[in-house]
Amino acid sequence: MSGDFGPRVTVPAALQALASNPKLKLLLVGLPDIISPLLVNIDAELLSRLQVVPAEQVVANDAKPSQAIRASRGTSMRVALDLVKSGEARACVSAGNTGVLMGLSKLMLKSIDGIERPALMTVLPNLEQQKTVVLDLGANVNCNSRMLVQFAIMGSVMAEEVVGMVNPRVALLNIGTEESKGLDNIREAATILKNIPTMNYIGYLEGDQLLTGKTDVLVCDGFAGNVTLKTMEGAIRVILSLLKSSDGQKRRFSWLLKIVKKWLQKRMTKRFGHLNPDQYNGACLLGLYGIVIKSHGAANEHAFKAAIEQAVQAVERQVPDRIAARLETALPKSD
Amino acid sequence: MSGDFGPRVTVPAALQALASNPKLKLLLVGLPDIISPLLVNIDAELLSRLQVVPAEQVVANDAKPSQAIRASRGTSMRVALDLVKSGEARACVSAGNTGVLMGLSKLMLKSIDGIERPALMTVLPNLEQQKTVVLDLGANVNCNSRMLVQFAIMGSVMAEEVVGMVNPRVALLNIGTEESKGLDNIREAATILKNIPTMNYIGYLEGDQLLTGKTDVLVCDGFAGNVTLKTMEGAIRVILSLLKSSDGQKRRFSWLLKIVKKWLQKRMTKRFGHLNPDQYNGACLLGLYGIVIKSHGAANEHAFKAAIEQAVQAVERQVPDRIAARLETALPKSD
Repeated sequence: MSGDFGPRVTVPAALQALASNPKLKLLLVGLPDIISPLLVNIDAELLSRLQVVPAEQVVANDAKPSQAIRASRGTSMRVALDLVKSGEARACVSAGNTGVLMGLSKLMLKSIDGIERPALMTVLPNLEQQKTVVLDLGANVNCNSRMLVQFAIMGSVMAEEVVGMVNPRVALLNIGTEESKGLDNIREAATILKNIPTMNYIGYLEGDQLLTGKTDVLVCDGFAGNVTLKTMEGAIRVILSLLKSSDGQKRRFSWLLKIVKKWLQKRMTKRFGHLNPDQYNGACLLGLYGIVIKSHGAANEHAFKAAIEQAVQAVERQVPDRIAARLETALPKSD
Repeated sequence: MSGDFGPRVTVPAALQALASNPKLKLLLVGLPDIISPLLVNIDAELLSRLQVVPAEQVVANDAKPSQAIRASRGTSMRVALDLVKSGEARACVSAGNTGVLMGLSKLMLKSIDGIERPALMTVLPNLEQQKTVVLDLGANVNCNSRMLVQFAIMGSVMAEEVVGMVNPRVALLNIGTEESKGLDNIREAATILKNIPTMNYIGYLEGDQLLTGKTDVLVCDGFAGNVTLKTMEGAIRVILSLLKSSDGQKRRFSWLLKIVKKWLQKRMTKRFGHLNPDQYNGACLLGLYGIVIKSHGAANEHAFKAAIEQAVQAVERQVPDRIAARLETALPKSD
């Protein structure tokens, strides 16, 4: 029950998710005194699938991961992950501090054999009316070539098993398409990926291809992934803001402006609805023996519900098992 | 006379630049047999300010920098940089291989005392109707904290002396705004920047702030800079393409679509004309004892002329001298 707005966003979102998923059961981890008042006058059937699990503390948004992890006992994040570890819960959804969630998840749920560090993954829409799996989005600011290869395998599994693609294309994000371009770890990863028979590796792509649909899976380190995702979101917001009437000269056309803006937003919603952070909210922390979904800290009700839905989907598709199975065949066993 | 399209783009662009800058003189370095036919029936006054300097070879676009630099003798890029070194030219404009241009420029023109490696810089428009100096855009894929600090100083000089800002704000591109976020080199650079009295350092900014005008100078390593610039360009292109009539259902509104598209483009041109790569083409290679402008390889006539204009401006504002002077005061002398 963390995030920038706490239970007043996450509790209504949980209730919405229960309403649209008749088999779903949710454990709300947090301060009962704050959560309980939000559960009065709620439909009894929904309440029967809801349980409040007390946690007295919360991880601060600006906490330093290493310190916060050491002092995590009793926090809602730790309690929630404990529930996943013990099998009482099948997934954990959190809008809390990304670094702490990542570190604590790894500590408690352990990485799948063959995965050095889990990665944050999201699914973006693209111009070809398909979807692109992008990872890592910020869990790992430093990645070696092996990690990039592991991300590629996990992204490939997601594209096949969750998005439903056949033989998904996998590309590495780089600053040029020639083989000699970029950082050593990227070039080394390219060499490894070319030699994995089950991998449909297509080469390097640059940032301007993020939304064009030239690949089904785009792999990068967490720093580049975060920069490219945020830049894309920022550019889209800037263009939409251009449509707002602001300069005096144009005031006489403000009615036209309103129509155009509405029309464009409708058109964008239709083709790029997923670009709205509310729609695709919920990055999946891939590579753990357990399902952890990271929501935007600033998520609203609708967005937090989307993150819960992602968790439901990951449970249904048995994402960790499928990744573990693929790693068995794709990578030679490490000693 | 390099780039994807060679002299058939660069020669007409050169003639245009001569026509709009009455004091400008240009040396065209390349194969005389290819350049000369493009100079027939040209105004005599323009021709009097133009000189063809023969070069028999050209650096390949996909050349590996280290090899290409060793084998650079006789190439148009090397000859042009020789002219800058000897003082016969005041600046070099090239649409050639970035890595080779960067390496060869450093080898021949030398870095300014206090600059470890030159950086590629461009000036972007922003939502506040101002401009943002962004560097590095791809010259250095690996940067230590000292290099980032040097980029910050060079960017600050550009913002003051070329863009005309007073006490420009300087930010580091990062994946969060909290002090603990990001890579070690960025955090170390932040610590150094805070302690430079002449520096108006404002902290970290994320990729979604690239166009919002929250800073006047945005500093990053060349990998992140390239990713963020390309992603921004790509997102803008995608949104513009959304405005293209494509889905059948809407065909009956195609006339409206055309009007809207034209109107939006006009509005965007007015406020974000510089986002058109043709308008801001020409990244300045900052930090050398000499002026080198890198044009997009795929630049058209208009875009290549913009790169020549950048060179003219850099010569007039004496960019290298001003950077050298600022380094004297901002940084303690290295031993």
